[in-house]
Amino acid sequence: MINENMNSIISKGWEDEIARRVERIAASLAEIGADAMLISSNTNLYYTASRVIAGYTYVTAKGDVKYFVRRPVGLDGDNVVYIRKPEQIVEFLDSKPATLALELDMPYNDIQRLQAAFGGVAIVDGAAIMRKIRAVKSPFEVALMRRSGISHVESYRQIPHIYSDGMSDVELQIELEHRLRQNGCLGLFRIYGQSMELFMGNIICGNNADCPSPYDFTMGGAGVDKSLPIGANGSIIRPGMTVMVDACGNFTGYMTDMTRSYKVGKVSDLAEKAHRCSVEICKRIQSMARPDVSARSLYETAVEMAEEAGLSDYFMGHAQKAGFVGHGVGIEVNELPVLSARSKDVLEQGNVIAVEPKFVIPDVGAVGIENTYVITADGAECLTVMPEELIQLSE
Amino acid sequence: MINENMNSIISKGWEDEIARRVERIAASLAEIGADAMLISSNTNLYYTASRVIAGYTYVTAKGDVKYFVRRPVGLDGDNVVYIRKPEQIVEFLDSKPATLALELDMPYNDIQRLQAAFGGVAIVDGAAIMRKIRAVKSPFEVALMRRSGISHVESYRQIPHIYSDGMSDVELQIELEHRLRQNGCLGLFRIYGQSMELFMGNIICGNNADCPSPYDFTMGGAGVDKSLPIGANGSIIRPGMTVMVDACGNFTGYMTDMTRSYKVGKVSDLAEKAHRCSVEICKRIQSMARPDVSARSLYETAVEMAEEAGLSDYFMGHAQKAGFVGHGVGIEVNELPVLSARSKDVLEQGNVIAVEPKFVIPDVGAVGIENTYVITADGAECLTVMPEELIQLSE
Repeated sequence: MINENMNSIISKGWEDEIARRVERIAASLAEIGADAMLISSNTNLYYTASRVIAGYTYVTAKGDVKYFVRRPVGLDGDNVVYIRKPEQIVEFLDSKPATLALELDMPYNDIQRLQAAFGGVAIVDGAAIMRKIRAVKSPFEVALMRRSGISHVESYRQIPHIYSDGMSDVELQIELEHRLRQNGCLGLFRIYGQSMELFMGNIICGNNADCPSPYDFTMGGAGVDKSLPIGANGSIIRPGMTVMVDACGNFTGYMTDMTRSYKVGKVSDLAEKAHRCSVEICKRIQSMARPDVSARSLYETAVEMAEEAGLSDYFMGHAQKAGFVGHGVGIEVNELPVLSARSKDVLEQGNVIAVEPKFVIPDVGAVGIENTYVITADGAECLTVMPEELIQLSE
Repeated sequence: MINENMNSIISKGWEDEIARRVERIAASLAEIGADAMLISSNTNLYYTASRVIAGYTYVTAKGDVKYFVRRPVGLDGDNVVYIRKPEQIVEFLDSKPATLALELDMPYNDIQRLQAAFGGVAIVDGAAIMRKIRAVKSPFEVALMRRSGISHVESYRQIPHIYSDGMSDVELQIELEHRLRQNGCLGLFRIYGQSMELFMGNIICGNNADCPSPYDFTMGGAGVDKSLPIGANGSIIRPGMTVMVDACGNFTGYMTDMTRSYKVGKVSDLAEKAHRCSVEICKRIQSMARPDVSARSLYETAVEMAEEAGLSDYFMGHAQKAGFVGHGVGIEVNELPVLSARSKDVLEQGNVIAVEPKFVIPDVGAVGIENTYVITADGAECLTVMPEELIQLSE
């Protein structure tokens, strides 16, 4: 017996939203001269079908959409076609495209197979289009992120209660993961590309904060195993240390990104100062962020403020530095726009950005905060509202 | 200050193991007429460097190896070269390869960039080679999997203690995740390709067991959100239901795969019978499995045994069926060999396979077990030793 809510491919309440997304994709295809796009990544399948399927979404520049499904069985819809393999797709099309957009960040073998299945059609990249479209969130999407933000904050509020003296960073992380899951976190951390791998988040304290990681996260940490060299490494959290928490905010399929920093006992004046600087940078960026502002200018402002405070050596890492101070967030944690020195992105209404000016203070840990902001018509609204000071875990 | 164990690129104790792996890769390259391979996937970087790096492992058919590293900073080794971008690699090679193996399951854009960086070199697929090599585990790797198996079993043994009447499948899953993490589970579930996404495992009960999923797992479940439509969906676990647990066994970078089934109150005779059949199938497959036996024959044996028991309708799913009964496991949960009808794989000493003959019983849930076996010179040894009966959770 098939679960009854599996019947219609488009989830209830998502119909208009999906129709609008398809329209935007069609318009982008027309702009780049592609006749259609065949979507096969889980992220973009979820975006275009309201659910992950094994199969393909096919969108034409005229705005028609078909879903070619391998699994699950039992999906209904006028535009749902069951197939066993992608070679069958062309049989079900009214006309074969002359130019087909494919997600060229998908596996080389798969792209070659799809191109052959369409008779060696000319292909152009559709992945960049999708990233650009997804960077502008609708009110529907912002509502999902708002819900994630509320649960994200609720979970972080429990951190002082789950902490106890003598705990390791890993132990604290496990307890936080537990609370996150109890509060409805889906656990899965969708990340674009393979430059970042992570379990449910990053908790770092003391010297481990300055251990460089291979991944493109702002923060490092050795991790507990070299198969996943990032984050908590079993360090005991001791007086004088800070603990930075940057954990998974995926409660709805759309995630928020949030960091808060904590302290045990008294920490160095440098750490306190750097933390205050991070809060000030976030405030400044929030006050500047609005449509038509360049992402690069926000990055430069952050760098200048850190420099003016004499904190450049610690800004965005110490032994190893990250080259950005913020990024878009949505279905994936690393969407557009990117707040970096080379970014050509310009903010638009509906962008949702995470801003994370962080500092690594040797022997102490990492300090700073991260908030997720939605860009509105005339400013930036924070979706992760919670006290921003260096929160005392224990005297 | 860089963590001192970050100094040498090859982790302590892994030197001989890595040298042997490089030798095997070199031999395979020579066989297919490739001069060298450039590795860029995290899984194969971990396999060839003993740690994940942002960068590349370059192996020649002569057995030379170089590591081209972008991040982390601070790695040492005679054959470690720091680069900013892949275009720099050729500058550091004694000779440019005429034919280069690349992992053609990596993104199309990346492969094109690498091919161009080598001056439009002829490329052949290295991904299949690596999957074949990785399918045969060394004693070193089996030792890591043995450790995972022990912790995996320890965690499952706690399930009756964390269960309480009236719990939902999601609640039980969250408590199990917590125990797994406390027992050292790394959390990350490495899966090859995007055909499978999962958080930390799959717990299904009652009707949800028969809800088809888009993913290529043996078991389904609606999940709690359509962005990740798999597994527990919040169903209350009630008397008469079975609960199948198939959770993440990655404790060492090398994982085991294990399933156990539980019952609440009395369950139907059909469910009891199907569970016994699964245990019998595992026993039979274990007794047959040894070097030179075809993976296909193991699959066919399982199918026949289910048929003889009159259980074909329920075998490997009901509304939707999985097309395999087992698979290799290692760094990723879906390695070679594959135990399916079309498999051409033949067992070799050092293969590690998960065997998971499962049944979905409508209105009851899923039953059956899964064990991980290492293929030895003359048989198959179980790495997930634990009682196999349908375990009573509550009277």
